[in-house]
Amino acid sequence: MTGWITVAGLGPGAEAMVTPEVGAALDQATDIVGYIPYVARVAAREGLVMHPSDNRVELDRARLALDLAASGRRVVIVSSGDPGVFAMASALFEAVEAAGADPDIRILPGITAMLAAAARAGAPLGHDFCAINLSDNLKPFALIEHRLRHAARGDFAMAFYNPRSASRPEGFARVLEILREECGPDRLIIFARAVSTPDEALRVVTLAEARPEMADMRTVVIVGNAATRRVGRWVYAPRSAGAT
Amino acid sequence: MTGWITVAGLGPGAEAMVTPEVGAALDQATDIVGYIPYVARVAAREGLVMHPSDNRVELDRARLALDLAASGRRVVIVSSGDPGVFAMASALFEAVEAAGADPDIRILPGITAMLAAAARAGAPLGHDFCAINLSDNLKPFALIEHRLRHAARGDFAMAFYNPRSASRPEGFARVLEILREECGPDRLIIFARAVSTPDEALRVVTLAEARPEMADMRTVVIVGNAATRRVGRWVYAPRSAGAT
Repeated sequence: MTGWITVAGLGPGAEAMVTPEVGAALDQATDIVGYIPYVARVAAREGLVMHPSDNRVELDRARLALDLAASGRRVVIVSSGDPGVFAMASALFEAVEAAGADPDIRILPGITAMLAAAARAGAPLGHDFCAINLSDNLKPFALIEHRLRHAARGDFAMAFYNPRSASRPEGFARVLEILREECGPDRLIIFARAVSTPDEALRVVTLAEARPEMADMRTVVIVGNAATRRVGRWVYAPRSAGAT
Repeated sequence: MTGWITVAGLGPGAEAMVTPEVGAALDQATDIVGYIPYVARVAAREGLVMHPSDNRVELDRARLALDLAASGRRVVIVSSGDPGVFAMASALFEAVEAAGADPDIRILPGITAMLAAAARAGAPLGHDFCAINLSDNLKPFALIEHRLRHAARGDFAMAFYNPRSASRPEGFARVLEILREECGPDRLIIFARAVSTPDEALRVVTLAEARPEMADMRTVVIVGNAATRRVGRWVYAPRSAGAT
């Protein structure tokens, strides 16, 4: 039996946003590897072995997948959203490089959180934008600040992943200060929590009104560009937005 | 009968990447509005009226959808990829604002081209990144250059939509020059054409080797950050990439 690894994006939460190719990969798998709440989204069936693991052990998880595939298993590593956006695909390739391995790998895209959030809000990412992981587990805050300032000065809309955790709440407060400095108080900011799940909540405020506690680790934050505006309950970036 | 408008993302091409909620919206529609090749992807059935239109008439298309919904029709505006990324969602909200209308609108996300391309290449968008529309139909080239330089100086990976058309081939040549200036000759660049269709082609080169004719309007271009590397046939951004 020839083993393989598929890294599959489960989308933001709703089953109606899981692509058919991801569903087919799950049907063919012998083993599911991933963070506990994502593995819990896969339906159990006879012969399917679940390998749930805690957060922040991405490399261990990738190595487990390599070992399983080397022994002939058909492994799906599940990610929330899209596996290539601040998720398991990069960790897998780090493990592949370190191991000098060459397994059969497929990456299957999914609906990433910022696009699900943007769809609920209107079209805030309809013009040029950046995606920034605000977690400082893997990079210094100085680099986050450097990127925020370049993104703001380039008048990009911005989407933030992992904006705030209990262990480092002060980082996001500083992010909001930097944004107010660079973009002014009237810029629109969207807090989109747990989109497409029963806990979904959407809030649109200005930077002046924004507070750190409006975000948690289930929230994606989107900041508009200079032309981003409201129409009714919607927020959108005009197609011709932006000025040097 | 109460009309509505749904703006739906059909993904990059393969049916296996169309989400179930988009399929359900197409099943409920009375009218399909969109660019000719995207409308052609929707299966015909009795009572379903197709309204294909040419490129660059996004506002006319949005107004048609508003008129149809006002008369009680159930309209799906189809976009390739995700409707919120350089596609029809922003145009619809522009038309809504101009008309002072308040129709029943839903935006359904789809697999956007850069994420489908990234999945085929490995994980080049696994760290912070920007998405930039290189079409200068709706913005001056000076703004494109301004954003490219900020993106490069922030050490963002970059994904480019609409890199090159027959009517303005010189723009993309200039983009490559700017990137070589900012990022040096060894930076990796990915040309991903028509991902998930029978015409799919993927090419990975350095900026020194990149040529404008490697891209056309069916190509998404992804530029790595300073840490982006190859492992076997794959290209990925390590999770801890980047330095100020």
